Amino acid sequence: MSQRSKQFHLNAFLMGVGHHEAAWRHPRTNADDVRSVGHFAELGRIAERGKLDSVFFADGLAVGPRIKHNALATFEPVTLLTAIAGATEHIGLIATSSTTYSDPFTTARKFASLDHISGGRAGWNIVTSAGEDEAANFGLDAIPDHLGRYQRAEEFVDAAVALWDSWEDDAVVLDPDTGVFADPDKVHAIDHAGAHFRIRGPLNSPRSPQGRPLLVQAGSSESGKDFAARYAEAVFTAQRTLAQGQEFYRDLKARVTAHGRHADELKVLPGIVPFIAPTESEARELEREFTELISPDYALRQLSAILGVDLTAHSLDAPLPPLPSVHEIQGNKSRYELVKELAESDALTVRELIGLLGGGRGHRTFAGTPEQIADELQLWFEQGAADGFNIMPPYLPGGLTDFVDQVVPILQRRGLFRAEYTASTLRGHYGLAHPSSQFAASRARNSA
Amino acid sequence: MSQRSKQFHLNAFLMGVGHHEAAWRHPRTNADDVRSVGHFAELGRIAERGKLDSVFFADGLAVGPRIKHNALATFEPVTLLTAIAGATEHIGLIATSSTTYSDPFTTARKFASLDHISGGRAGWNIVTSAGEDEAANFGLDAIPDHLGRYQRAEEFVDAAVALWDSWEDDAVVLDPDTGVFADPDKVHAIDHAGAHFRIRGPLNSPRSPQGRPLLVQAGSSESGKDFAARYAEAVFTAQRTLAQGQEFYRDLKARVTAHGRHADELKVLPGIVPFIAPTESEARELEREFTELISPDYALRQLSAILGVDLTAHSLDAPLPPLPSVHEIQGNKSRYELVKELAESDALTVRELIGLLGGGRGHRTFAGTPEQIADELQLWFEQGAADGFNIMPPYLPGGLTDFVDQVVPILQRRGLFRAEYTASTLRGHYGLAHPSSQFAASRARNSA
Repeated sequence: MSQRSKQFHLNAFLMGVGHHEAAWRHPRTNADDVRSVGHFAELGRIAERGKLDSVFFADGLAVGPRIKHNALATFEPVTLLTAIAGATEHIGLIATSSTTYSDPFTTARKFASLDHISGGRAGWNIVTSAGEDEAANFGLDAIPDHLGRYQRAEEFVDAAVALWDSWEDDAVVLDPDTGVFADPDKVHAIDHAGAHFRIRGPLNSPRSPQGRPLLVQAGSSESGKDFAARYAEAVFTAQRTLAQGQEFYRDLKARVTAHGRHADELKVLPGIVPFIAPTESEARELEREFTELISPDYALRQLSAILGVDLTAHSLDAPLPPLPSVHEIQGNKSRYELVKELAESDALTVRELIGLLGGGRGHRTFAGTPEQIADELQLWFEQGAADGFNIMPPYLPGGLTDFVDQVVPILQRRGLFRAEYTASTLRGHYGLAHPSSQFAASRARNSA
Repeated sequence: MSQRSKQFHLNAFLMGVGHHEAAWRHPRTNADDVRSVGHFAELGRIAERGKLDSVFFADGLAVGPRIKHNALATFEPVTLLTAIAGATEHIGLIATSSTTYSDPFTTARKFASLDHISGGRAGWNIVTSAGEDEAANFGLDAIPDHLGRYQRAEEFVDAAVALWDSWEDDAVVLDPDTGVFADPDKVHAIDHAGAHFRIRGPLNSPRSPQGRPLLVQAGSSESGKDFAARYAEAVFTAQRTLAQGQEFYRDLKARVTAHGRHADELKVLPGIVPFIAPTESEARELEREFTELISPDYALRQLSAILGVDLTAHSLDAPLPPLPSVHEIQGNKSRYELVKELAESDALTVRELIGLLGGGRGHRTFAGTPEQIADELQLWFEQGAADGFNIMPPYLPGGLTDFVDQVVPILQRRGLFRAEYTASTLRGHYGLAHPSSQFAASRARNSA
């Protein structure tokens, strides 16, 4: 095995019985698995067998137009990852949780608890909620605007970090002889007072094994990239070509260093939906089978939501109608731009666009042999487009099993990916340091 | 084994390494267990070995004055119970969650997820948050008043129940051939619009195995009892004498039937802190050992918080100073009244009161042999003071192990308690029916 100076990271993005929107209709899946916690525990074990860094669940706070045709998530991500924690020992556990309809105390505590339970494997994918359906479940008549959501998110994360820091690493004494449980000098009020939140603290949980969960982000708008550069330690991103991936990577790393951070403190993980088969033609045939199972009715609703226009009565064999400008989009701006560019650059019909989006909602789909997939990942890694990858199996568990058993061994032989875990925490897997408490640092200065 | 027509219910109320506030200092415990998820998983397995109905965790949203001397909870209850779910098969899992600083959508989803993950074993102990320290973590300068908290709680539970009902039991179709995931006619908006919340729904989770989690309540004030009579299916209560227990039981059951419910639809479960030993004198000696480990500094702070007066500079060997009237108490009114009555009826000094409260914060402590404890439970059950009991082991795991291995077999021999589980859900353990969705009922009426 050749040894490279730098290896890459792999996250498995898990969703129901697969990312392809028709996955649950294909004979390679068992539709009922969408509500089986045993299915998800098994996915965690498969990912761990492949020595992956982490598994990840997205989240949404409304069912929206998905009810009839989509095999919707049954579980809330933090509880589901807690169940997976009990079935695994090493794999990192990343959950999406929104800053728009929760508060820092509740969220900080939830992730601290997952981090304690899992022995230091929790990660938080920080999102803002853009859906009108979500707003209606939390008493709002309209979605908060894009900029306002990010301003709230920044204050939210600042407060959450202060809460995780409110117990210093060595605050818990637990001395039965003296009766001292904790050293009060090492447990701090945070006294946060901002535009959105006032929080006294401390958190009602001692500091967890990782100090703070891994902070992850996935939005690629201007606000999203600035937010990531300031806070994120891993970024999930949808990039369709190597050149786009390189440009995004350069841009984001430059923003990271502009914030005074080291470029390595943020890992860029582009998404890929791999259809794996012994030959390229078999892989393409497999992808085609899934595409044919897409329900146009459902796909048109999804596409309408992304593009901000009602396409449900639009002809499937015509090109897209004129679209609103990005400034009118209050939802996911980067996803809008990606889909618009995709449709316009190749003058696709709506039907063609739906097929292309069916696998990963705008993420890159790649059909090929295990060697071809390994080559592609190596290329992006070595050409400065990625620190690792967000693997989005189109169907589950088979698509993850094939990646772990057929692609990972190639990457390991090439020295691109770990053969064994060398760390015990999610931060450790991603090569990140244990953060020290901001209050410990200021106490040290004061007593110096 | 004699067979009785009616058996009683047993819940294990778990807290750190035991309910006694000095439990973590006693050689029978391992203080570090307070942050060990393995400890709590083992407690779940012990309770299940005893065929208990459920385990339960209380909760608070601030550390308050506990930091220095109390072995504080490390975990958030719903995630901790999710971890216990994976280590057990039958035992019910009840978590406290406050209606004061959360919202119905988030809370309904959290318990639906626990119910899905555990296969129908979730229960929700509904509380309002009365602490000033809690208010300060959620942006409030003062605690919401007692009546206002209960009005919010009523609207909160109405909305949560509607959200659980928003997916009918058979809404999920999961037919891969037709591509239909769910029947949209059986998934309902709830369109809740009240004084505190506006929620469109439906919930972003299909109906869970139990339909709704078991609804539990623990406040014994007038507002608390009315709330329980309307919503609760199990009530945890602190009653110190048989006569008081009988009066509470009669009062609460009368309120239940006044709300048009059957008296059996609510189970009354008084708390008991059992010190168990082969002889009564050994049991009393064991209790004394724990009392001697109480830190007066910590106990005075706790007592001050309950009574609404600052006792931290008060002499331990004097009686209590004059107390405020119950109308001035915005916190836990029933706990205030219980402690006040206890102190005044026996003219206790502060030191004596602290010792009496150390075991279970006002719950009844009982030191005796396994036979004596079984006799006492049987007496309360047969004399109309209880449908079962909330067992609060003073130290863990030993106090639970002794109860399960020494007291439960006596109850089983007497035919008072199940020898095997006969149901698969928490509702089933408590003899409660599976609730039908309110929307299914109205749809059936409309189509009749």
